[in-house]
Amino acid sequence: MKLAVIGGDGIGPEVVAEGLRVLRAVHDKVETTEYDLGARRWRETGETLPDSVLEELRGHDAILLGAVGDPGVPSGVLERGLLLRLRFELDHHVNLRPVKLYPGVTSPLAGDPTIDMVVVREGTEGPYAGAGGVLRKGTPQEIATEESINTRFGVERVVRDAFRRAQRRPRRKLTLVHKNNVLTKAGDLWSRTVAEVAPEFPEISVDYQHADAASMFFITNPGRFDVIVTDNLFGDIITDIGAAITGGIGLAASGNLDPSGAHPSMFEPVHGSAPDIAGKGVADPTATVASVAMLLDHLGLTAEAARVEQAVAASLAARAASSGQPLSTREVGEDLAERSTSASTSAA
Amino acid sequence: MKLAVIGGDGIGPEVVAEGLRVLRAVHDKVETTEYDLGARRWRETGETLPDSVLEELRGHDAILLGAVGDPGVPSGVLERGLLLRLRFELDHHVNLRPVKLYPGVTSPLAGDPTIDMVVVREGTEGPYAGAGGVLRKGTPQEIATEESINTRFGVERVVRDAFRRAQRRPRRKLTLVHKNNVLTKAGDLWSRTVAEVAPEFPEISVDYQHADAASMFFITNPGRFDVIVTDNLFGDIITDIGAAITGGIGLAASGNLDPSGAHPSMFEPVHGSAPDIAGKGVADPTATVASVAMLLDHLGLTAEAARVEQAVAASLAARAASSGQPLSTREVGEDLAERSTSASTSAA
Ligand SMILES: CC(C)[C@H](C(=O)O)[C@@H](O)C(=O)O
Ligand SMILES: CC(C)[C@H](C(=O)O)[C@@H](O)C(=O)O
Repeated sequence: MKLAVIGGDGIGPEVVAEGLRVLRAVHDKVETTEYDLGARRWRETGETLPDSVLEELRGHDAILLGAVGDPGVPSGVLERGLLLRLRFELDHHVNLRPVKLYPGVTSPLAGDPTIDMVVVREGTEGPYAGAGGVLRKGTPQEIATEESINTRFGVERVVRDAFRRAQRRPRRKLTLVHKNNVLTKAGDLWSRTVAEVAPEFPEISVDYQHADAASMFFITNPGRFDVIVTDNLFGDIITDIGAAITGGIGLAASGNLDPSGAHPSMFEPVHGSAPDIAGKGVADPTATVASVAMLLDHLGLTAEAARVEQAVAASLAARAASSGQPLSTREVGEDLAERSTSASTSAA
Repeated sequence: MKLAVIGGDGIGPEVVAEGLRVLRAVHDKVETTEYDLGARRWRETGETLPDSVLEELRGHDAILLGAVGDPGVPSGVLERGLLLRLRFELDHHVNLRPVKLYPGVTSPLAGDPTIDMVVVREGTEGPYAGAGGVLRKGTPQEIATEESINTRFGVERVVRDAFRRAQRRPRRKLTLVHKNNVLTKAGDLWSRTVAEVAPEFPEISVDYQHADAASMFFITNPGRFDVIVTDNLFGDIITDIGAAITGGIGLAASGNLDPSGAHPSMFEPVHGSAPDIAGKGVADPTATVASVAMLLDHLGLTAEAARVEQAVAASLAARAASSGQPLSTREVGEDLAERSTSASTSAA
């Protein structure tokens, strides 16, 4: 496995080190190349993602990213110049985000709800396209526009992907989340596409929620969701709600996938670089390790993926039951690596 | 007070009747005109908002709306044709939504957080402008766009309104919610406008949250927010999250304001027409009555507004403490009317 590694800034390199520890524990043929990208590089060189680096990244099987950014970088520079550029250039049209409340993890929602869904967020178009413009900037007559671009091609492929994922889950339910009562043009394209693809998946029950109502149900009744398919911006928001209700952004994993395999997919924890705790060895690498499980699954190493996923669940349950000191970044990594390999033994 | 009343569909007329009961209890000069708009009218006549009705509405001091819609009406018809048309034609640029957890009301969030904020949602531009289009509809090459239109004029007036509201609140805090790291053009306009208006309000502390992070904090730390100013679409989503964390959409009030007074403002509960419980006399009219309090406040009847607001709080606390049968729509309305007037006596 040729893996590109972007540790990034803040706690990024720390959590990625533990992700790699676990990856190596379950798979012995990992060849890594590290890429220095993020706030530090931008500050030193003005570069966000040089074309030559992008070309090199294309030569890998997958990318593991920690986190980039720090408060000194103007908003948008690394987001558009690095993170979104990677998603767009590498055609990461399936932004996959499981929303799962692990046993033992405390939800801020009262009454310990069962939460186990996966959000398939479109990753290469919609309001994230970057289209739009500014006229008469800085004057009282300024106008700024943002254009959401939605194509049948782009919507259909992510809708199909979501249907296929729903097929592999016990509840076999797919919910389209949009705002088709207001964004009638894009909303209609999404709704029609789901309706037209649905007959190919007769065993999947399909429903629809507006983004505002869905956000509410994430709180009042998260158990109603199984697989969600949604546009880039709604997906951004609802997956953060999903992270919040399942124990916080510190546990949320994500994959930016090109399911066709034409480009390397990228895996990253949803959390940021957390400069306040960087270098202290206290960051929780669990979200990165859960992202490694997604990476393994994406590359067809499903048994290894399952072991890491089980290790994550077991480790979280054990930590919840323990009354000791919180573990260090490295201790969590070692625990997860050990659980991933002993799970392997017991399964053998 | 010349009041236009749009009961609408489903439970709309039932809750509006109780809103009027309370309004009349605290103010004896209410002259109402009822307008038949909504799903029923659309089905019978194909009309959503005839120009002549719009002209008549303009002649009123305020509008009270129940809820419109039912599952038989295609998505978007009444939303764009009636609700949004009213907001745009009557220049309702301040969509005001208090997010407040009343004592006694159960939040789905564990640990009984304190929640008391107000969201100032822009109401006349942004992604709700209706701009955009569709090309090659129904073909594999279909493209659908939605355009968010943001003007300095439109942003500045709502930002100023939010600053003024923050001035009148003890915590004096304003948070801009946007997504300026991705929607860089509109986000920059919003951020610059807040930064430029802020020096006029030196006593207000100002911060910024991305819409995804804000949605998360509504769940993990709602107490950090006081006044929020945000665009039309982010405001739509976060106010539903706000409703969810404060006991549900059944209690959420809203005002669609033209603070200049040039056009009548419109007040409505955030909930929908709930056809499943229509006609049963069980709908909770509290959100409508809380919207009536906002109406009174908007028209300068601040003492009356405060009495209704206090009645809502007292009634919710009493209902929480009672172990009896849930009250009917009418019983809640009568209780609120009585509390509004006895509060009046005791304050006199
Ligand atoms: C950092 C930002 C560009 C990104 C997004 O908006 O997609 C983040 O919020 C996420 O969800 O991965
Ligand atoms: C019904 C719909 C047009 C409306 C909106 O999107 O604004 C509703 O969700 C609301 O929040 O008032």
